[in-house]
Amino acid sequence: MVSEGYEGFLESLVRAGVWIPSGVQGVYGRGEGFIVATNALASAIHRGFGVGAERMQFPPVMPRSDLERIGYFRNFPNLLGSVHCFCGDDRAHRDMLKRHDAGEDWTEQHLASDLVLTPAACYPVYPALAARGTTPAQGYLVEVQSTCFRREPSVDPMRLQSFDMHEIVRVGAAADVVAFRERLIAQGQAFFSQLGLDAVMSLANDPFFGRAGGVMGQGQRDKALKFELQVAFDPAGAPTACMSFNYHQDHFGGALELRLEDGQIAHSACVGFGIDRIALALFRQHGLSPRDWPIDVLDLLAVL
Amino acid sequence: MVSEGYEGFLESLVRAGVWIPSGVQGVYGRGEGFIVATNALASAIHRGFGVGAERMQFPPVMPRSDLERIGYFRNFPNLLGSVHCFCGDDRAHRDMLKRHDAGEDWTEQHLASDLVLTPAACYPVYPALAARGTTPAQGYLVEVQSTCFRREPSVDPMRLQSFDMHEIVRVGAAADVVAFRERLIAQGQAFFSQLGLDAVMSLANDPFFGRAGGVMGQGQRDKALKFELQVAFDPAGAPTACMSFNYHQDHFGGALELRLEDGQIAHSACVGFGIDRIALALFRQHGLSPRDWPIDVLDLLAVL
Repeated sequence: MVSEGYEGFLESLVRAGVWIPSGVQGVYGRGEGFIVATNALASAIHRGFGVGAERMQFPPVMPRSDLERIGYFRNFPNLLGSVHCFCGDDRAHRDMLKRHDAGEDWTEQHLASDLVLTPAACYPVYPALAARGTTPAQGYLVEVQSTCFRREPSVDPMRLQSFDMHEIVRVGAAADVVAFRERLIAQGQAFFSQLGLDAVMSLANDPFFGRAGGVMGQGQRDKALKFELQVAFDPAGAPTACMSFNYHQDHFGGALELRLEDGQIAHSACVGFGIDRIALALFRQHGLSPRDWPIDVLDLLAVL
Repeated sequence: MVSEGYEGFLESLVRAGVWIPSGVQGVYGRGEGFIVATNALASAIHRGFGVGAERMQFPPVMPRSDLERIGYFRNFPNLLGSVHCFCGDDRAHRDMLKRHDAGEDWTEQHLASDLVLTPAACYPVYPALAARGTTPAQGYLVEVQSTCFRREPSVDPMRLQSFDMHEIVRVGAAADVVAFRERLIAQGQAFFSQLGLDAVMSLANDPFFGRAGGVMGQGQRDKALKFELQVAFDPAGAPTACMSFNYHQDHFGGALELRLEDGQIAHSACVGFGIDRIALALFRQHGLSPRDWPIDVLDLLAVL
């Protein structure tokens, strides 16, 4: 592991041009080294985990109506980014500019559009599958990539507001979905070991909002619905999830009317890779120049 | 060219799983074929146009303060997507859910954040370069990729709200910047010819907002600041820009205080590739299966 302290490591990332600060917490540009690492990671995940899967990519925005059906704003209202737009005429525009030039808030004429920022890569997958009609008996296996947004500005560089997520999604009968998650848990651990990263598999819960959120999180833990593969970037801090393994039971199937041929509501699970976090872990572990990483890691990532 | 009509072509894209409609105009997911084509295009652009350039990627959101400095909301207020977020407590959250469940507008508690959706891939580049201090005498050459957003819902599938843009950006002395644009205009035409696409180079202008917008557009044309490489997807409709070649004079340099060593404000130019549009043109021209495209095109794209 790079021996310098954690803050020194972050400064060196910026100094080496690997990361480009934007001035807003949790929003970074990528320089050459980070582009090489994240492209290589995405390819390695595709080769290793995408076998037999249907591939999809979605834009960073998705229909508000789908988000409403899924119910995200009930449990994570504070994390949601909503796309607002100006729909006024010439006169409203002049008013807006006057406000701006007087140092006032010029955004109040921006109204909610029919789009929100995608909070998880798998969210647009379920409506796309539901649009096909009845789920076939063997279900679906989908590999999906998207840039996601969660409103949690933080000094912690592992907690980005805008980040790339790669997921493998399984939809089908409960037993198939559960077996898929078991298989991926083992495969995920092997992947991290091959990457030379120390990761710990932990029972976890989503950060449900508000006072009722604690109860919901405990319920999720009691049913063992979420596991995370966590890496300790900063020896002094809490470890950070780099992969998650989520069993949704019939949540998405019920919300989007995904039904199997026998009429049962389909179950689903998703396994997510936090691309930026895994890349940062690699830089932290193996140094600032991807081309100098251990040969086994380069071989797995097929860098160069 | 695929012989069926334009609408038939779009339906066949969806039927073949190349494109995945979201239900909102101008927001599409990508299936296997489109992922293969856009990845290959991005790689070909990097190999062909990125030689000697510094590489950057930016997220689909950028600081509102940078957008204000650039002045985008003055000229294109109607195209801007602004990121709004809920910052309330438990009680405000209960109110919001009540509104939603009563079928009312539940978005009014969403307030403008310090982020907007990135409208052009090159926008975050100028603040990043300005942060380095004085621009070196030879200037900068940057290759940048980003997913961009413009609020223009349309039935025209060439006019996406969320789309990938790849740009080559040149910052420096006026003469260098002008020469760069000249060189790229020639190179862009050769690239489209190699892709087997009929494209026409046209003088163009940006869609400035409102009544004053027409005058600004005419001024831009009079100075020949913008050229577009346009492809006619639909023989019955207007051609669509797939690349643009923009000379900004000292607009970005002045807005962001990019100065050369001699104290002069730096000039800039950018050359943009509309990745989704070029990919659609390829599907339109060469058929629905990238692996069956002409061998010269596959060779250039290095597909497979």
